[in-house]
Amino acid sequence: MNLSCPLPRPIMDRILLAHGGGGRLTHQLIENLFLPAFSNPALNLRHDGALFNAGNGQLAMTTDTYVVHPLLFPGGNIGDLAINGTVNDLAMCGARAVALSAGFVLEEGLAMETLEVVVASMRDAALAAGVPVVTGDTKVVDRGKGDGIFINTTGVGSVFAPQPVGPTFVSPGDAVIISGDLGSHGIAILSVREGLEFEAPVFSDTACLLPAVEALFEAGIEVHCLRDLTRGGLSSALNEIVVINGLRITIEEALIPVSDVVRGACELLGLDPLYVANEGRFVVFVREKDAEYALTVLRSQKVSSHAVRAGTVLEHTSGIVTIRSRIGGNRVLDMLSGEQLPRIC
Amino acid sequence: MNLSCPLPRPIMDRILLAHGGGGRLTHQLIENLFLPAFSNPALNLRHDGALFNAGNGQLAMTTDTYVVHPLLFPGGNIGDLAINGTVNDLAMCGARAVALSAGFVLEEGLAMETLEVVVASMRDAALAAGVPVVTGDTKVVDRGKGDGIFINTTGVGSVFAPQPVGPTFVSPGDAVIISGDLGSHGIAILSVREGLEFEAPVFSDTACLLPAVEALFEAGIEVHCLRDLTRGGLSSALNEIVVINGLRITIEEALIPVSDVVRGACELLGLDPLYVANEGRFVVFVREKDAEYALTVLRSQKVSSHAVRAGTVLEHTSGIVTIRSRIGGNRVLDMLSGEQLPRIC
Repeated sequence: MNLSCPLPRPIMDRILLAHGGGGRLTHQLIENLFLPAFSNPALNLRHDGALFNAGNGQLAMTTDTYVVHPLLFPGGNIGDLAINGTVNDLAMCGARAVALSAGFVLEEGLAMETLEVVVASMRDAALAAGVPVVTGDTKVVDRGKGDGIFINTTGVGSVFAPQPVGPTFVSPGDAVIISGDLGSHGIAILSVREGLEFEAPVFSDTACLLPAVEALFEAGIEVHCLRDLTRGGLSSALNEIVVINGLRITIEEALIPVSDVVRGACELLGLDPLYVANEGRFVVFVREKDAEYALTVLRSQKVSSHAVRAGTVLEHTSGIVTIRSRIGGNRVLDMLSGEQLPRIC
Repeated sequence: MNLSCPLPRPIMDRILLAHGGGGRLTHQLIENLFLPAFSNPALNLRHDGALFNAGNGQLAMTTDTYVVHPLLFPGGNIGDLAINGTVNDLAMCGARAVALSAGFVLEEGLAMETLEVVVASMRDAALAAGVPVVTGDTKVVDRGKGDGIFINTTGVGSVFAPQPVGPTFVSPGDAVIISGDLGSHGIAILSVREGLEFEAPVFSDTACLLPAVEALFEAGIEVHCLRDLTRGGLSSALNEIVVINGLRITIEEALIPVSDVVRGACELLGLDPLYVANEGRFVVFVREKDAEYALTVLRSQKVSSHAVRAGTVLEHTSGIVTIRSRIGGNRVLDMLSGEQLPRIC
């Protein structure tokens, strides 16, 4: 009889689109394949970026490959998305990007003009974030083996947070603050991809979140956790956090800002804005007593001028996210299952 | 009359496979598009990696996306290639990798088993190189918009070289040392891709070059420049160096090691082994007086046990690489034009 404990294995035998969706299958792939293979203290924290020691200081590192389709969309393109997204992931670790790398996978036949537009947006976004692109790489794949442009950006940041920030520092009693209205990025992408027109044009919220994060720390607020609301949206971000620390997060549906046009588009498309990706929104966990001040500070920054308090962290025996609906009932807000919006970033 | 100097523009209006080949078109894309857009001191040095200051120390950073086809080949797979290649690029800056990131682009429908094999090879190669994979990202693209697996690895390294190393430090009189026989990686890939059988199986030379590089520095040798001989092979590496510093490098064809089976395969396929990619070979520039000792040190390391002195750096008015053939004539060894082996790494 074999009593040894078998390694957990991914349950699927093929990769599905949902493995890249930021929801349940992405989570399984990470937990069952990547974490066991590469296990180390930095990776095992499961944060947006990793902290490591080099030189005489502590640095943060994060990586993201951007495969958004289409390459150009209202409010941005894959180029500024690739810079902002990685600068933001470092900001979520309480770090300022000091060096970026850019790795391109180009498809044979791509119009040079498209590449020029994308590279110009990357340049502008990098200048705005104050970070140099110090090294790069370009590969070309044959026609039909890629899709125009994929861009990997990896960032190294210097940590400015005076205390560690991350899911493990979320505590019962913490206030849950959302930096602005949800869903614009996903709906902007979908409107181009599906050729949909809504009552008003929807622009991606892609933006650099660093000024808002720096303002929080400069104000001396003890920030417990930051998380940007990308793939899988608010619901997946909150679920990832409760899975790690076994608490309950409860939010109020009526407090969560969603613009009328995004709400209308979501109703039309059968989407829940709490699961739609954002590229310029984040959630902040601070102590109850700091909540009002944190809101004041965030509202002073353009990128988070519509920040709201949306919920609270409670004691619980296992991780769960609940939402109180407009008519008063409580329901569980689960992690995204399947894939509603592939290739959103 | 407009006397301002127009920005140089890429001459092609579409991306060709050769833009990713490491030869002339790659060079043009870098010089005409990427460098003007992202210009900064680290990037402008055009080295395999960039040096930047963070914390209180100097760090190196490098990025590479691996798109090799097929994913598995004799002697390795895309996984160990992705780890070794990035560790090697840092070693070429005189740096030891201290943290790696891994960004996956998976194609819908990929067999999970293939991903598991690749990830296991990455784990083993990272362990062998002594570097943790601290952060990662996974994206999935729809079937027909990718090709199984693309992997970006980006590395941060701590610099151990006591003096700067790079193309600008190559000087007249330097000896040119090659760490081993050339062409195995490219021919191994090609043999699988084209279903060719040669008189003996050819295995990729993919390997971690760090021990050989560390041994050179530990021996106190003043290394002027290191360059791994990947895309575009030896000829492109030497040409990139002379373009930057305007010297002449002359090598002896009879001194360059190429195995009989690789030479035979190249003759059959109409390839020049000096242009074929390697993933475990590098060129070293040291002062003439250190050449013999450097060879002794390199030959003490498994990965460079067949190192040879292949040429010399001479004064010249503009950058040029020449090769003295077996029968005595000198010819110019030009940068790779076009693309002979797409998706080799």
